[in-house]
Amino acid sequence: MADTLTIALDAMGGDAGADMVVPGAALSAERHPDMRFQLFGDQARIAPLLDKHPKLKERATIRHSDVFVAMDAKPSQALRQGRGKSSMWQAIDAVKLGDANCAVSAGNTGALMAMARFVLKTLPGIERPAIAAIWPTLRSESIVLDVGATIGADAQQLVEFAIMGEAMARCLFGVEKPTVGLLNIGVEEIKGVEQVKEAAQLLRNLNLPLEYVGFVEGDDIGKGTVDVVVTEGFTGNIALKTAEGTAKQLAAYLKLSLTRTLLSKIGAVLAFDAFRALRDRMDPRKHNGGVFLGLNGVVVKSHGGTDALGFATAIDVAIEMVRNDLVNKIKTDMAGLGHANAAIEADALPAG
Amino acid sequence: MADTLTIALDAMGGDAGADMVVPGAALSAERHPDMRFQLFGDQARIAPLLDKHPKLKERATIRHSDVFVAMDAKPSQALRQGRGKSSMWQAIDAVKLGDANCAVSAGNTGALMAMARFVLKTLPGIERPAIAAIWPTLRSESIVLDVGATIGADAQQLVEFAIMGEAMARCLFGVEKPTVGLLNIGVEEIKGVEQVKEAAQLLRNLNLPLEYVGFVEGDDIGKGTVDVVVTEGFTGNIALKTAEGTAKQLAAYLKLSLTRTLLSKIGAVLAFDAFRALRDRMDPRKHNGGVFLGLNGVVVKSHGGTDALGFATAIDVAIEMVRNDLVNKIKTDMAGLGHANAAIEADALPAG
Repeated sequence: MADTLTIALDAMGGDAGADMVVPGAALSAERHPDMRFQLFGDQARIAPLLDKHPKLKERATIRHSDVFVAMDAKPSQALRQGRGKSSMWQAIDAVKLGDANCAVSAGNTGALMAMARFVLKTLPGIERPAIAAIWPTLRSESIVLDVGATIGADAQQLVEFAIMGEAMARCLFGVEKPTVGLLNIGVEEIKGVEQVKEAAQLLRNLNLPLEYVGFVEGDDIGKGTVDVVVTEGFTGNIALKTAEGTAKQLAAYLKLSLTRTLLSKIGAVLAFDAFRALRDRMDPRKHNGGVFLGLNGVVVKSHGGTDALGFATAIDVAIEMVRNDLVNKIKTDMAGLGHANAAIEADALPAG
Repeated sequence: MADTLTIALDAMGGDAGADMVVPGAALSAERHPDMRFQLFGDQARIAPLLDKHPKLKERATIRHSDVFVAMDAKPSQALRQGRGKSSMWQAIDAVKLGDANCAVSAGNTGALMAMARFVLKTLPGIERPAIAAIWPTLRSESIVLDVGATIGADAQQLVEFAIMGEAMARCLFGVEKPTVGLLNIGVEEIKGVEQVKEAAQLLRNLNLPLEYVGFVEGDDIGKGTVDVVVTEGFTGNIALKTAEGTAKQLAAYLKLSLTRTLLSKIGAVLAFDAFRALRDRMDPRKHNGGVFLGLNGVVVKSHGGTDALGFATAIDVAIEMVRNDLVNKIKTDMAGLGHANAAIEADALPAG
């Protein structure tokens, strides 16, 4: 008996804009018969698309705007020009005003983060928001953050990422004490940069609902060694893109191999179901949705190039975060961290 | 009509030590009938293995040593304890003394780099050596460096990596002007860290045998967008390990899919040749060999867990580097860079 939620959608975001967002919302409406949708964007473009999806139309409102953030706009420029009036801004603003429970956009990542940060503000104690990716693993799924919200992070910020990731893992995986690892490299002596070593020290002493298991390396991500992999945005983004590239590369090799000879083609036909299962598992549309963490509201970024199915996945992720109270989980943990810090500082005071 | 070369092998390195190195050398001896081998390590363990490979034995010398660097030793400790007398040290020293043309070891990476640096010294103008990986791509192969020699790199060091990578690409791929890209992330405004942006500026103005094409992202590596991908060691190591992890993950998915039903099993049998071709292409033993760049001699690091076939590949890589005069190519380019810098400085002097 889930509550009715309202989802704010930036209908103009993504490579295909409303042509992808509206059918994506329609898919989502089928999956979640109790959701309502607010579609922000050009009324003239959205209305005819909505007519094609009567079931969605019943539960959707169009919120007209005629300013749109270009996919290649610079965040500062988008913020200047799109402030107040762009479809992206208004979708986020709906979350702030309490008109919607979360916002989903397939638009420009940098602009979305800049606006979300500006409108929703960061949570108490959070210096920097992060973008968390849901990464398919051999075990199931893991959360990797930050994958590109900002470059570089000091030890304290890495600890904040760990806390935000742990809260998201509790929402997504339903585990009580998610395992957390710090991404590092395996050269013994010079193991890691200073801030990673320092973050490890801090994480070991936290009294929060997470189990810090130590350093993990790049190949641990795909293995699913931990529920949450913590790193700064530059490395995280490169790891994510490298994995995507490798997956595409291997899919291309497989296709090439299977179409080489008649026999291999016949084999491929017989094993069709197997390949469909494999494609399903590797389908990036089923792992779509970068969650913005550390903000006073739920915002999810969909891949810009995705289709309706992928966009519906991103909406699923946003709903999961709202239903499981992501923002309050992070708030509570950060408050706990504050108390812990105060206790540590108190301990450090001279006795008597 | 290739010259006879002598290859120094650390026979005690790697998870399996001499049991893997000697058969690996035997494979290499078959491939290269004009090579000679020096096997550094425990005579009592090497001699009986050598007896099993008479063809190798004819062209191999055992250089006894009874100090071995443990796979998990700290580099500084290995340097202290293994200095002068360990099999690893002596293999590198043979290169310095001119007894061998190159050294190959499957031992402890950190220790090997520390010793190589200590014994061979860095080339004039090179502040820091790098480890370069040969990365299979959709196009063919690319070089990625640094994958873990050191953490962090300033703009000048990134430029040195670009030059060393370009020289290696000329040796390995036979191209005259390899394309070079700087690994970066795609968030527009904050595009990259300062040193990466500064390195881009420097690379644009170089008059060297390389074509700087700009920033590349993680997914460009597998695509083969450029011949040489330049990054600092922390990010490079994580990208490499992440790709390895993803490849293993997908191979596991594929296996799982193909053994799911009887039909898929039959299909897999029919497509056996296709899968063999795929496995071949993905075989990490065929892409084995991290090349140490920037040193006064050729040292190649084999994966510690590889087998004879993989070790023979690492020897192949070392031979290629010697035959194509890697060290002198880097020296020449660095000298050219020096002239260029001098010219720039001269231009900056007040005229008259």
